[in-house]
Amino acid sequence: MPKDAAARDIHSFAAGQWVAPGSGARSIASAITGDVIAQAGNDALDVQGMLGHARDLGGPNLRRLTFHDRARMLKALALHLKEHRQTLYDLSFDTGATQADHMIDIDGGIGTMLVFASKGRREMPDGHVFLDGPPEQLGRSGAFMGRHVATPLRGAAVHINAFNFPVWGMLEKLAPALLAGMPAIVKPATATSYVTEACVRLMLESGLLPEGALQLVSGGLGDMLDHLDCQDVVGFTGSADTALKLRSNLHLLKNSVRFMAEQDSLNATVLGPDATAGTPEFNLFVKEITREMTAKAGQKCTAIRRIMAPAPQIDALIAALGERLAKTRIGDPRLESTGMGALVSNGQKRDVLEKAALIHAEAERVFGDPNQFEVDGADAAKGAFLPPMLFHCADPDTAQRVHDTEAFGPVSTIMPYRDPDHAVALLNRGKGSLVASVITRDGDMARQMVEGAGAFHGRLYFNNRDSMAEATGHGAPLPHMVHGGPGRAGGGEELGGIRGVMHYMQRTAVQGSPDILTAVGGQWVPGATEITDRAHPFTRTFTALDIGETFHSPSREVTLDDIETFAHFTGDTFYAHMDDTAAAANPFFPGRVAHGYLLLSFAAGLFVQPDPGPVLANTGLDNLRFKAPVQAGDSVKVHLTVKAKTPRKDDYGEVRWHVTLTNQNDEAVAEYELLTMNAV
Amino acid sequence: MPKDAAARDIHSFAAGQWVAPGSGARSIASAITGDVIAQAGNDALDVQGMLGHARDLGGPNLRRLTFHDRARMLKALALHLKEHRQTLYDLSFDTGATQADHMIDIDGGIGTMLVFASKGRREMPDGHVFLDGPPEQLGRSGAFMGRHVATPLRGAAVHINAFNFPVWGMLEKLAPALLAGMPAIVKPATATSYVTEACVRLMLESGLLPEGALQLVSGGLGDMLDHLDCQDVVGFTGSADTALKLRSNLHLLKNSVRFMAEQDSLNATVLGPDATAGTPEFNLFVKEITREMTAKAGQKCTAIRRIMAPAPQIDALIAALGERLAKTRIGDPRLESTGMGALVSNGQKRDVLEKAALIHAEAERVFGDPNQFEVDGADAAKGAFLPPMLFHCADPDTAQRVHDTEAFGPVSTIMPYRDPDHAVALLNRGKGSLVASVITRDGDMARQMVEGAGAFHGRLYFNNRDSMAEATGHGAPLPHMVHGGPGRAGGGEELGGIRGVMHYMQRTAVQGSPDILTAVGGQWVPGATEITDRAHPFTRTFTALDIGETFHSPSREVTLDDIETFAHFTGDTFYAHMDDTAAAANPFFPGRVAHGYLLLSFAAGLFVQPDPGPVLANTGLDNLRFKAPVQAGDSVKVHLTVKAKTPRKDDYGEVRWHVTLTNQNDEAVAEYELLTMNAV
Repeated sequence: MPKDAAARDIHSFAAGQWVAPGSGARSIASAITGDVIAQAGNDALDVQGMLGHARDLGGPNLRRLTFHDRARMLKALALHLKEHRQTLYDLSFDTGATQADHMIDIDGGIGTMLVFASKGRREMPDGHVFLDGPPEQLGRSGAFMGRHVATPLRGAAVHINAFNFPVWGMLEKLAPALLAGMPAIVKPATATSYVTEACVRLMLESGLLPEGALQLVSGGLGDMLDHLDCQDVVGFTGSADTALKLRSNLHLLKNSVRFMAEQDSLNATVLGPDATAGTPEFNLFVKEITREMTAKAGQKCTAIRRIMAPAPQIDALIAALGERLAKTRIGDPRLESTGMGALVSNGQKRDVLEKAALIHAEAERVFGDPNQFEVDGADAAKGAFLPPMLFHCADPDTAQRVHDTEAFGPVSTIMPYRDPDHAVALLNRGKGSLVASVITRDGDMARQMVEGAGAFHGRLYFNNRDSMAEATGHGAPLPHMVHGGPGRAGGGEELGGIRGVMHYMQRTAVQGSPDILTAVGGQWVPGATEITDRAHPFTRTFTALDIGETFHSPSREVTLDDIETFAHFTGDTFYAHMDDTAAAANPFFPGRVAHGYLLLSFAAGLFVQPDPGPVLANTGLDNLRFKAPVQAGDSVKVHLTVKAKTPRKDDYGEVRWHVTLTNQNDEAVAEYELLTMNAV
Repeated sequence: MPKDAAARDIHSFAAGQWVAPGSGARSIASAITGDVIAQAGNDALDVQGMLGHARDLGGPNLRRLTFHDRARMLKALALHLKEHRQTLYDLSFDTGATQADHMIDIDGGIGTMLVFASKGRREMPDGHVFLDGPPEQLGRSGAFMGRHVATPLRGAAVHINAFNFPVWGMLEKLAPALLAGMPAIVKPATATSYVTEACVRLMLESGLLPEGALQLVSGGLGDMLDHLDCQDVVGFTGSADTALKLRSNLHLLKNSVRFMAEQDSLNATVLGPDATAGTPEFNLFVKEITREMTAKAGQKCTAIRRIMAPAPQIDALIAALGERLAKTRIGDPRLESTGMGALVSNGQKRDVLEKAALIHAEAERVFGDPNQFEVDGADAAKGAFLPPMLFHCADPDTAQRVHDTEAFGPVSTIMPYRDPDHAVALLNRGKGSLVASVITRDGDMARQMVEGAGAFHGRLYFNNRDSMAEATGHGAPLPHMVHGGPGRAGGGEELGGIRGVMHYMQRTAVQGSPDILTAVGGQWVPGATEITDRAHPFTRTFTALDIGETFHSPSREVTLDDIETFAHFTGDTFYAHMDDTAAAANPFFPGRVAHGYLLLSFAAGLFVQPDPGPVLANTGLDNLRFKAPVQAGDSVKVHLTVKAKTPRKDDYGEVRWHVTLTNQNDEAVAEYELLTMNAV
């Protein structure tokens, strides 16, 4: 298509400058009218300059911030986008998407960013090093320990996104990268790049991002991949063919560049044997399938391509699906009555028809005729419209195409299964999928599916009458859960909360003395130096307290009378506390022992400061282990050390204390972590 | 070399049969004498048959076992090998290794297996599904939740190992694969395959492994990689060139086959600015370097290739290293006086000399002359002997070869650095390493190294006078800590405790109702059905208890007198419990409130069964969070539900209880997990 004077120029944002389309630009057509509405691409883009900008400016700027700083930045960015989302809605109709589709793409992308913002504050420290797991004692005395830490990679995250979600597709990769502390270079699919460009403009104009943190390539990437190294990451979403081309790049292979691919796959749904016609589960199954076939006109990498049902349910299912699909109006997505818009382009429409023909050779078409369907408010001959098409494959065991051909549109195939093992076998013939769903209320069926098909799936979605009011849908990747799958699905993994942030960080095993591990991780490690020359730490504010500040309490004797009193006061008259002979017969006790909660309570009595001060409340306790029994006549004392500090609100923060209770022989009798909220 | 009649036949173990060398067999020479001592390899090996045997027999046999069963199997295997290790020692001398080297390879391999056996029992469930992280609430009410589970991949783990550790190299990959539930096909480097073969024979003869769990390829792999799919895993250790060749295999790329590479890298060590000559750290530095240069004759993928020291320390360091290296006697490894044996082969010796020559072009040789050194008890002209060779590169900024050329033998290069930033820059010029060590007692220096060089290193090892008595050595990968590194080191990751087991499992995001998640994970999820029609669960044995069994206690009022009594009894007279006005001024409390420990203690009084029964002891408590304040006049009651069961010893197991304390309005006031030890 020639460059059209009326069409918009879609810019790149490279090394701090907006760059207009130039030589090599491609035209972009409206999915609804087929008219050229924009152009994008510029062969002369300085990709090495962009990488340098990200590495030398964006990376250092982001790494200067803490995880909490970056989480706050994500929250502000998301709220800014939310405020301006109407701009993005308005642009998105031309991609063929309905308002309901915009909610998935635009609101879904913003929601994803908000979840990462929230998890960043709740699950990561307000520092520069993320701790992965507890310390490991590597020697006899604890003088040499190990711990895993994660630090941000020092290169650029190159994100190559698919056409179907111009906003979510960018934000779901961008949020974890920025939270990790890595700058990103985003390359959207050209077909819908005008929406992504508008979203990038909104983010840049907000002034919330440090310089170099975000760049945009509208059009082709040039030879950028040939300049990446082990500190860069490539995140790809799209077709298997393109993924293979990119991942075979010799330069990437030679330099072990991280390459994460999320490819379209033959996702399936299974109707449980319990979910016969007439049950709420049967109706739910029909509803989930209809939504997956029509949302985004079936152009979702997670959409249901294969529908498996017990053979006796097949006829009822075809009838119910046909009835429901018939109600979906196809047309201009701007019309409120439209239930399904257009595919992204006529090229995509042709591709879907070709793939559907392959499936048709193995399956009967039981709903939808691409040569005969109504289109509301648009010219069916010009726009990229298709009806939902449902096929029925009676013999899925001998069929091949229905298990390996993805028509990336509103196309799905029903097939019968005999028993759960057969369903597992059919599921796994997808050779690796992003998701499968099972509509069942039977826990054993669910367990069998996970044990049999889990290894072939990145996500398994179960739904039934108990969960359907809150369930998020077969096709929706959630920021909390990993997204990706083995084999045909690309072998990559994204999202999954902090798991998704780790893809942009290097995990490093650190070994050293407790003092070294404390200095490195910003969290006190048992055995490290205690700071004991200050006032009682409970009298010191959150801000003043240093990691390692320690209080050593006086000791207190535990008498038989104490044990008796506590037992009768609380009602805990367990024999190990009351009866010397019975207690001695227990494999864990030498005789009558004090209650664990008595020890915890006495410990609090030994360290609590009665008067109002910076400690506002004891909010919790973690990892309590009783190490040795305490008998009447023994005495206990407490060490209390500041282990970690995490800001929570403007005026207070959480202090995690390492607490050790020892007896008169300095043996540990209990160890735990105490949480308090402290004024700043 | 022609096939020698006196040499041993090294067999493969394929699909349950020992297969002798055949067409295409290669000869293997002694590192000490150069004589042919064995032959291995057979072009006619049925690699597809082997894969089928692993997938159809080994996998199902292993997956039938639980994680604990497999952990017990690993322990038994390790103890069996320990009993027979002399056989392996005896064979290993011909690889050039000394008795001290055997301890690294053979005892180190057995020790690694024992750590996985122990972690498997302590950190994994006695079931078939591993839970990765806590449940995530995905809706408002908790009717729809998410959780990540891991299940074993259903293919074969193909382990391609390096020549330098014929036993450890196999066991460090085998232990996590078997623990995950995946069968392995081991392909050792041919040069030392006779030691691996002997070790495999010991394991198979023990009868401890189920059929199909372990196969061996002595010689070449044929076209095995062309038959792998997304359920198989390739674990490779060796050179970057071979790794590149393997990972570029189009079939592997097309099918997203997991490929983990651990390649030799330019590992470095840094002398901290505080560790001047005369300090214990300076001496430790010299000792660590000497060990890394001479152990296994420098043939360790983690060995120190680059030595960085503050410029003023360089001369003293060269002198001290020279003095220490001069004391290392080279010769027949069977001699007790020998400190360093031979390289694995004369081919390897030639390669090291070629690489050393490249380094020599940029650096002065300050110790060791390959043309003039003494060899004890062997013919230097026939065996693959070399002296330790130390180079000094005065200008590491302009030099290139010293940062990218790995002479895989007793070769290392000293270079000066100016300040910590310069040390970081030099470290990172390795473009990704398995390990760097820093000898320092300065916590700030350690933190700077982690923040600056962590992203380029899989492991950072710190040592100083505080840790040196227990430190495990720069070059020793430990089963607890990840091993691998970015970029030049291959981008892979192994070991690291359960992290290493995950490489052989698929992580799957599971979504569903609490009942479904409970059925799938074998662990009760809040919101799931409670079993309440049985006797008090504290009266029921570990074996009898089912997940979900729940006790609802009667409620108890908390009086002002209770609060007063508790405060004075324990000494915890914190104002929030004692003074209504002061408490109300606190942002968390409406007025005077009960102690958290009072609530815990009353809760115990409400559920404990006084008489001897199956509950033997309360051993700990996790994840306690106080949710709402309790005031005088409020009442509390307890729900106590069996969340998880883990067998610990023959006669008792650990029960994890989910406990919720609610008030008279059924609002949660505290939530926690209680641990008890219960008789079977």
